[in-house]
Amino acid sequence: MKTDVLVIGSSAAGLVVPTVGKRVNPDKKFTVVTKQPKTMIPCGIPYIFGSLPGSDNNVMPAEKMYEQTGVEVIHDEVISVDKDKKIAILAGGEKIEFEKLVFATGSEPLKPKWLNWEGKENVFFVPKDKIYLDEMKEKLSACRNIVTIGAGFIGVEMSDELNKAGKKVTLIEKLPNILGLAFDRDISEKIEVILRERGVNVLTDAEVKEITGEIKVEGVKLSDGTVVPADAVIISMGYKPNTELAQKAGVLVNEMGFIRVDEYMRTCDRDIFAVGDCAEKRDFVTGKQVPVMLASTACAEARIAGMNLFKLSAIKTFSGTISIFSTAIGNNGFGVAGMTEAQAVKEGFDIITGSAEGMDRHPGSLSDSHKQYVKLVVAKDSGVILGGAVFGGLSAGELINVIGVAIQNRMNVNTLFITQIGTHPLLTASPAAYPLIKAVENAIIQMNK
Amino acid sequence: MKTDVLVIGSSAAGLVVPTVGKRVNPDKKFTVVTKQPKTMIPCGIPYIFGSLPGSDNNVMPAEKMYEQTGVEVIHDEVISVDKDKKIAILAGGEKIEFEKLVFATGSEPLKPKWLNWEGKENVFFVPKDKIYLDEMKEKLSACRNIVTIGAGFIGVEMSDELNKAGKKVTLIEKLPNILGLAFDRDISEKIEVILRERGVNVLTDAEVKEITGEIKVEGVKLSDGTVVPADAVIISMGYKPNTELAQKAGVLVNEMGFIRVDEYMRTCDRDIFAVGDCAEKRDFVTGKQVPVMLASTACAEARIAGMNLFKLSAIKTFSGTISIFSTAIGNNGFGVAGMTEAQAVKEGFDIITGSAEGMDRHPGSLSDSHKQYVKLVVAKDSGVILGGAVFGGLSAGELINVIGVAIQNRMNVNTLFITQIGTHPLLTASPAAYPLIKAVENAIIQMNK
Repeated sequence: MKTDVLVIGSSAAGLVVPTVGKRVNPDKKFTVVTKQPKTMIPCGIPYIFGSLPGSDNNVMPAEKMYEQTGVEVIHDEVISVDKDKKIAILAGGEKIEFEKLVFATGSEPLKPKWLNWEGKENVFFVPKDKIYLDEMKEKLSACRNIVTIGAGFIGVEMSDELNKAGKKVTLIEKLPNILGLAFDRDISEKIEVILRERGVNVLTDAEVKEITGEIKVEGVKLSDGTVVPADAVIISMGYKPNTELAQKAGVLVNEMGFIRVDEYMRTCDRDIFAVGDCAEKRDFVTGKQVPVMLASTACAEARIAGMNLFKLSAIKTFSGTISIFSTAIGNNGFGVAGMTEAQAVKEGFDIITGSAEGMDRHPGSLSDSHKQYVKLVVAKDSGVILGGAVFGGLSAGELINVIGVAIQNRMNVNTLFITQIGTHPLLTASPAAYPLIKAVENAIIQMNK
Repeated sequence: MKTDVLVIGSSAAGLVVPTVGKRVNPDKKFTVVTKQPKTMIPCGIPYIFGSLPGSDNNVMPAEKMYEQTGVEVIHDEVISVDKDKKIAILAGGEKIEFEKLVFATGSEPLKPKWLNWEGKENVFFVPKDKIYLDEMKEKLSACRNIVTIGAGFIGVEMSDELNKAGKKVTLIEKLPNILGLAFDRDISEKIEVILRERGVNVLTDAEVKEITGEIKVEGVKLSDGTVVPADAVIISMGYKPNTELAQKAGVLVNEMGFIRVDEYMRTCDRDIFAVGDCAEKRDFVTGKQVPVMLASTACAEARIAGMNLFKLSAIKTFSGTISIFSTAIGNNGFGVAGMTEAQAVKEGFDIITGSAEGMDRHPGSLSDSHKQYVKLVVAKDSGVILGGAVFGGLSAGELINVIGVAIQNRMNVNTLFITQIGTHPLLTASPAAYPLIKAVENAIIQMNK
């Protein structure tokens, strides 16, 4: 068969490229090939283990959106691509001729070889695979003690959800703090306190040596000799880009293993694009390669690819990844955008930080009030906002986007200080003590010293 | 006595000017004169009639903030100002010599003369006066049927809160929709539905003719002859700037009655500033005078005045009012920033609108999910975002700030389309169907037609 645009993969980026692309190019034929019978909402996966009844409640409405926009879907696997002849071959044997190709092949869990997980029962990873996750959930339901290795977002969220589901969970992290790559220590520590209060046994500065048990998992042994008993172990030590297919086709990858892309999300071949977890990321501030994997970043890239498929738009280019992470534990929401203090110092910036704490409602006596802490990382010479973080109630999820938009507009402390913010007693902090603006004020006072 | 900076008024703007000013100028003496023994959180006032136990729970922590920053407070009234001699005279007889003077005298309810409210028992306005409000609350507690005249924010919030407190409330508005000056009809209608479902009797397109009853209120008569029975009437028909004192001192006001100010919030006298509800507002887009009164705008002006008191900062100027309003009814939050569609058309812009609806959590099956509708008003020639509105759950309060920051950075549909947004299942809409970005996409598709 023939198509104009062939997209490989149907997760966030694989959904957005053809649905945006088809609207811009209604006369072109768009085809998506996906291995997954049903695509999981990637960030929703941890919640199928606690908050949601199961994985069926976490299915992306991709089929519906493809149908609405007139995108064809084939449930099969692309096993090879000939980029010169512009042909993809499916596992089912079919050949697809394409004009443009988009790799949206995503990422898969890192499975470190040094850790003796292989061949052991009840050791799990967290892939974006519904069938695997359903089986995993069923097996976990019979377990009491669960150990999660790696306290990134997935590890923290899995631990909290399994704890919510009544399991006895131990979370093991080799860094001094959980979420230690995403947040500065001041915020990580606050999150740790909450996680402990909710009943998760958090072990930081803890190095895993091996998984004990012959056939079935029995525990996790740390380098200090401690053995944490476990009926199941979840390894959440990060993800790696899925680029095997692209590499075999002769598409270039960078030193970190991501498919090289330009500002229009084009690979080394101008008719082949890559978006999402498999595609190269460059930091918004430094331009350096970074290994960020985020569905929201993937979607921004996908929007750009979708707009630039057939003719380039000089004003719709990707100017670098500003990772905006957020998560919640109970009624506590946290977010981080751009650089942390630690990252900025490591990169060589002369920085100051401004922070402030307040309540996310006013008066603070309103029943759903929650403490809100905002921290900004500011370049000392220019006052430019390099990063920010929020620790507070559930409005943190959108407040971190206010900071994210400020960073992407390269706002500085002066422009942010005079910015008008909307406030309301039942929705936000007080206008006279809005923590974001107070944090800016504190940064300005420090800069003037 | 002598002071360096005399601030008249202690509400939002009167709090922020001296607390910011003192931090920038720690060697200067700051004095606030206020009539109020305790200052009410202005936007919190409606909530003392329902959600909060009473006005004591809605007191601004002004005294504490003044004390912390070393600002002197005098509870008295300034009765005259000699701007040439730089002297203010208090009702108590004291004279205060000042170097800089700041009018933060606020606003008071409009009391239209054509409406026969005068001398009638149980007719109320909504001033920012704790003693008045306490007495009003006590009198309302004995009433069953309450009529609110005027469906601006205060009228709507008062109606919902009194309804919550068990009263039978009728809200009367002469415009075709409630909140009709703030929101476009599509959103006003959604809010109306919610208010009605909660039990408020909403009458729109309804013109009040007179208040019936000789000594005590008995009802409100409409121009069509209907009489709505009432044990109490609340008149919420807007506010007017408090500028009598300034005018008597020879400080100029504009045609709308607000004190004229420049970009540094200075009046016609370079040593006299005005901020908040009493100070002139110019629209961010058109530069025209507008009668906006918002605590959040007041605080932005106050920050600028506080920074510019003794030497001007060319980078901390007020570039025009972008009114960002938000409110909530139950678990429904709404916000609007910048121009509505109706305002933009009236001003003569050739516009398009882009809107999108989704869920504010993902998957939408999560228990606290709420529909979220976003609308953007876009200048057709340039794609510049002129305004936006959100109708959704409680995260609408910060999401409207994302739009507000975008407008203030003069972002256009292209720059906003490629903007990276942080998302999380428990906090925001899905990255692949984030209504704000979908609304941008829809606007772009329309512009390309």
